[in-house]
Amino acid sequence: MSAAPPPALPAHPHRYRLRVYFEDTDAGGIVYHANYLRYAERARSEFLRDLGLPHAEMMTRHGALFVVRRVRMDYLRPARLDDALEVETEVLEVGGASARLAQRFFREGEMLVGLEIGLAVVRVRDHRPVRLPAPWRDGLSRLLRGTDEG
Amino acid sequence: MSAAPPPALPAHPHRYRLRVYFEDTDAGGIVYHANYLRYAERARSEFLRDLGLPHAEMMTRHGALFVVRRVRMDYLRPARLDDALEVETEVLEVGGASARLAQRFFREGEMLVGLEIGLAVVRVRDHRPVRLPAPWRDGLSRLLRGTDEG
Amino acid sequence: MSAAPPPALPAHPHRYRLRVYFEDTDAGGIVYHANYLRYAERARSEFLRDLGLPHAEMMTRHGALFVVRRVRMDYLRPARLDDALEVETEVLEVGGASARLAQRFFREGEMLVGLEIGLAVVRVRDHRPVRLPAPWRDGLSRLLRGTDEG
Amino acid sequence: MSAAPPPALPAHPHRYRLRVYFEDTDAGGIVYHANYLRYAERARSEFLRDLGLPHAEMMTRHGALFVVRRVRMDYLRPARLDDALEVETEVLEVGGASARLAQRFFREGEMLVGLEIGLAVVRVRDHRPVRLPAPWRDGLSRLLRGTDEG
Repeated sequence: MSAAPPPALPAHPHRYRLRVYFEDTDAGGIVYHANYLRYAERARSEFLRDLGLPHAEMMTRHGALFVVRRVRMDYLRPARLDDALEVETEVLEVGGASARLAQRFFREGEMLVGLEIGLAVVRVRDHRPVRLPAPWRDGLSRLLRGTDEG
Repeated sequence: MSAAPPPALPAHPHRYRLRVYFEDTDAGGIVYHANYLRYAERARSEFLRDLGLPHAEMMTRHGALFVVRRVRMDYLRPARLDDALEVETEVLEVGGASARLAQRFFREGEMLVGLEIGLAVVRVRDHRPVRLPAPWRDGLSRLLRGTDEG
Repeated sequence: MSAAPPPALPAHPHRYRLRVYFEDTDAGGIVYHANYLRYAERARSEFLRDLGLPHAEMMTRHGALFVVRRVRMDYLRPARLDDALEVETEVLEVGGASARLAQRFFREGEMLVGLEIGLAVVRVRDHRPVRLPAPWRDGLSRLLRGTDEG
Repeated sequence: MSAAPPPALPAHPHRYRLRVYFEDTDAGGIVYHANYLRYAERARSEFLRDLGLPHAEMMTRHGALFVVRRVRMDYLRPARLDDALEVETEVLEVGGASARLAQRFFREGEMLVGLEIGLAVVRVRDHRPVRLPAPWRDGLSRLLRGTDEG
């Protein structure tokens, strides 16, 4: 008797597509450097949603919130108006009250920007540190194992 | 016997100075049109603070908040990177739960953008309409009288 | 012998869907009022792209650019974090060097914000007024007729 | 016979003050993490202007532009609506076509955010790497020596 097959893992790294609009550019003709952090947060939101673990649910059900603690970002090539970009999001580490992710921006397969982001978990009410709620810890850790063994 | 002179009115319209940075511009080389609303809100914040009636105090003491209900904005000339702009803010009308202001952007005396903004007062807690707290109603109305009679 | 049927008109008003992220909200817990102009510009960009008339092509081929001249915006209800919004874009008027559009924001069929936007056409090089290039004038006018007669 | 005293060095680190407005906050009630990069760029602009070496002049006279290549940012404590912040900007290193700066955010003497930023110099025209124009290289290097020896 064969064991049931393990449930399929979601695609990992996660991929999110976006378009560059006027609002994102600056007078240098390129995407303003701070805006990659806005893009990256959109990608993380959709990553959690696609995982069945929306950030909003963590806030309303558990009163817990991810906040950014640490950013390491390297700009290799500029993106421009109307570019179609793809953002890869990958879990690097899951702690009891934190997570570490890598995010990479591509345009037609060419990498433009790479970033590593450290997140902490805090209470919505007063921003005090709290444990990462179990469904998020398990869901994110599972991806991590998926990455290592797959 | 002469009556005491009336207390001096604050300068009205109020003037606020700002500088255009890269973050404000777009790939067209000019200030991105939505950003005049950000500038205008900065100017309204400083207008209320200079009046001795900070918006933050209305929020914490009275649990009431100004929200934007209506914008009429006309763009005459573009502002560019590094421009020094001046924003004039003028009270046009004060209602029981609302206010209407005119704001005008100038660069070296030349008008660039004009806007009229309608504000409503709502509860911080649930965004339901409430009365404009008395100190703000009186302070803003006084400017109005100052404008009319001065 | 019957004439060939007229080519199908694109869906009009155009519909564009977007999600509200943290970057879009403010400390009042709602979408910051200026950000509807950013959303509206995204919707116009996709509207032109879906029409086969990308704004970027007007810039590179014709050296011409739409700029915002006039905004009339009314806020009926606030949008919040994680809301899925739909933006309707409708052509109201097409001039020799200008266009006027209506844009409306909906959340599950409920209207949140309405705006009317006046655009002018200027040269990329020096922002001087120029004629709306023929393909854009014809494409936009055709929608206008479609609206009137359909 | 004593040598003439060396010319006074500008204050270094440079200090820039700013206020947190609604536009800067998010639904978490704190300054949105990406906005510290906008603030930091304002502070660098004023730093260069106060040094007598405005960025805009480097662009128009030398056709050269600073672009951000690398960000290392750590968030210690959140800033909130209406906070008065101070940004310290300090030159860490000046290369032939690059510079490295430290920037620190304080609220009433308490450090909130620290960042290290790597800048490269590129041509305005095509974003190709170029040498840092001499007045900027000398002006920034002089601060560096001031820091080391003072």
